[in-house]
Amino acid sequence: MNPELKQWQQRAAAQTEILLERALPQPTQSPETLHEAMRYVTLGGGKRLRPLLVFAAAELGNSVQAACEAAAVAVECIHVYSLVHDDMPAMDNDSLRRGKPTCHIQYDEPTALLVGDALQTLAFDVLSVPTDLAAARQMRMLNVLARASGSVGMAGGQAIDLANVGADLSQAELENMHSLKTGALIRAAVALGGLSCPDLNDEQLARLDVYASKLGLAFQVIDDVLDCEADTATLGKTAGKDSEANKPTYVKLMGLAAARKYAEDLVAQAVDALAPFGERAARLRELAEFVVVRQN
Amino acid sequence: MNPELKQWQQRAAAQTEILLERALPQPTQSPETLHEAMRYVTLGGGKRLRPLLVFAAAELGNSVQAACEAAAVAVECIHVYSLVHDDMPAMDNDSLRRGKPTCHIQYDEPTALLVGDALQTLAFDVLSVPTDLAAARQMRMLNVLARASGSVGMAGGQAIDLANVGADLSQAELENMHSLKTGALIRAAVALGGLSCPDLNDEQLARLDVYASKLGLAFQVIDDVLDCEADTATLGKTAGKDSEANKPTYVKLMGLAAARKYAEDLVAQAVDALAPFGERAARLRELAEFVVVRQN
Repeated sequence: MNPELKQWQQRAAAQTEILLERALPQPTQSPETLHEAMRYVTLGGGKRLRPLLVFAAAELGNSVQAACEAAAVAVECIHVYSLVHDDMPAMDNDSLRRGKPTCHIQYDEPTALLVGDALQTLAFDVLSVPTDLAAARQMRMLNVLARASGSVGMAGGQAIDLANVGADLSQAELENMHSLKTGALIRAAVALGGLSCPDLNDEQLARLDVYASKLGLAFQVIDDVLDCEADTATLGKTAGKDSEANKPTYVKLMGLAAARKYAEDLVAQAVDALAPFGERAARLRELAEFVVVRQN
Repeated sequence: MNPELKQWQQRAAAQTEILLERALPQPTQSPETLHEAMRYVTLGGGKRLRPLLVFAAAELGNSVQAACEAAAVAVECIHVYSLVHDDMPAMDNDSLRRGKPTCHIQYDEPTALLVGDALQTLAFDVLSVPTDLAAARQMRMLNVLARASGSVGMAGGQAIDLANVGADLSQAELENMHSLKTGALIRAAVALGGLSCPDLNDEQLARLDVYASKLGLAFQVIDDVLDCEADTATLGKTAGKDSEANKPTYVKLMGLAAARKYAEDLVAQAVDALAPFGERAARLRELAEFVVVRQN
C-alpha cells in the first residue's frame, strides 16, 4: 500500500474517533449507563470503513467540512447500531465483536436494545445540524442515509438474511440480500461524501454510485471468504459463525478461490468507474484495493 | 366536547391513517414479512395523539401541508417503534397492545426488533423528503425530532425508567423520567406542527413549547391514573402492569385523587400558555382537555 495513502487512512480513522467521541454524549450525562454503553460499542475499534469512504469521496470535490464530518459520524452510528442489534440473542446471539464482549454481554439486553435505538437516532441528529452546505443538499444527505438504512435498505437486508437461514439461495438472491444488508450503507457513505461537495453534479454522483455498488458487493464477498479462512483472534469476532449458522455465503455458492477472484473483479470494476475523476479519486481507489487485501 | 372539534379530531385521525398507509411500504414489496409487520403495528389503531398535536399546532399559522403531514407520520412512526421495542421480552415483555397481540407475539422477536428499527428510520425518511417549506426550516424539524427521540429524549427516558424499577423516586425524579420518556415526543409533535408554519416566530414557538411541556406531563399522570383505574378491555393493553412491575407512578406517589387533580392543573396551565393565539388555538385547547377525560 502507498505509504502516503496508508498514512491518510490512519489519520482519517483517528479523526473519525475524535468526531465520534465529540458526537456521543458524555458518560457523566444522564442516563449515565446508556451513554457509557453507547460509547463502549462505538469508540476504540472498528475498521471505520464507512467514514473512510465518506472522507475519500469528499476528496472528489470541494467538500464542506462540517457536512462531511457529520456524515462520517452518522454512517458509523448507523453501522454500529446495526451491529449491536445484530449481536442480540434474538438475532445472531453473538458474544464477541471488535475483540470485546458484545453490548448485551457487557451490559444487558434492554441496554443493548436502547443503545442501538439511540445510536440510530444520533445519526440523524448529527446530520441535521446546520452547516455551510445548502440546507436542501444536506436534507438530501439525510434522505439518502434514511433510505439506505431502513426496510428497503440495511434493515430490509437483515430481514431477508434472517428469513433465509438454511436456505439455498441463487447468486442473484444472495446478491440482492447483500446489496441491502451491507451494500446500501456503503453506497450511502460514498454518496454522502460526494453530496458534501456542492460542486459535484448528479452525473458525477451516479458514476460514484457505480463504484460504491461494486465495492459494497466485493466487501461482502471478502467477508464470507474471511469468515471461512480466518481465525477468531484475527477477525475480532467469532469466526466461522455464518457457515455454522447455515447461512448462505459466496464461499458455499462458488468455492473459496472463485469467491476471492470474484471480489477482485468487482474491485477492478469499481476502480474503472472512477477513471474520469483522475487523481482526486486516488483515496477511493486505494480503499477499494484495501477491501480485498484486508485480514479482518 | 364541542361537536365540531370532535369531528375535526376524527377527521384528523382518519387522515393520519391514510398518510401512514401511504408512507409504509406495501406488504407485497420485499422483504414482505417485515413490511407486513410494520403495517400490522402501525395501522388500524392507536389514539394518534401525536399526529393530532402536529395538526392542531399547525393551525396556529400558515402551515405548509406536506411538511405538516410528513411530521404527523414521522412522530407516529417514532411512537410506534418505541412501543414495539418496549413490548419485547427484554423490556416490558407485554403481549397485548392496542387490543392486539404485540409484534413479537404475532411475528417473532427478530421481526419485532427490525420493525422497530425500520419504523424509526422511516420517520426520518419521510421527514427528509423536500416540501414547499424552506429546507433550513425542515431540517430544523428533523433535528427537533431526533433530539426528542434519542438518548437525551425518549430513549433516555426509557433507560431511566428501566433503571428505576422497584426504586422510590421523588416527584422531581419521576417528572424528569417522564419528561423524557413521554414528554419529549409530545413536545416534538407540537413543535413540528408549529415549525411547519413559516409565519410562526421563535417567541411563539417557545410559548407553544410551554403548552406542550405541561400537556406531556399531564398525559403521563393520567396514564398512571388509567393504569390503576381501568380494566384491560377498555385500555387495550394490559392494565395494572406498571403497578405490578413495581414501577414508580404518580398514583403511588400522591394517591389517585391528587394525581387526577394534578393532571387537571397541568392542563389548565397548558391552556393558559395559548392565550395570545386566540381562536387559532382552539384545537390545541380541546386536545389538552381530551387528555384528562380520555378513558384509554
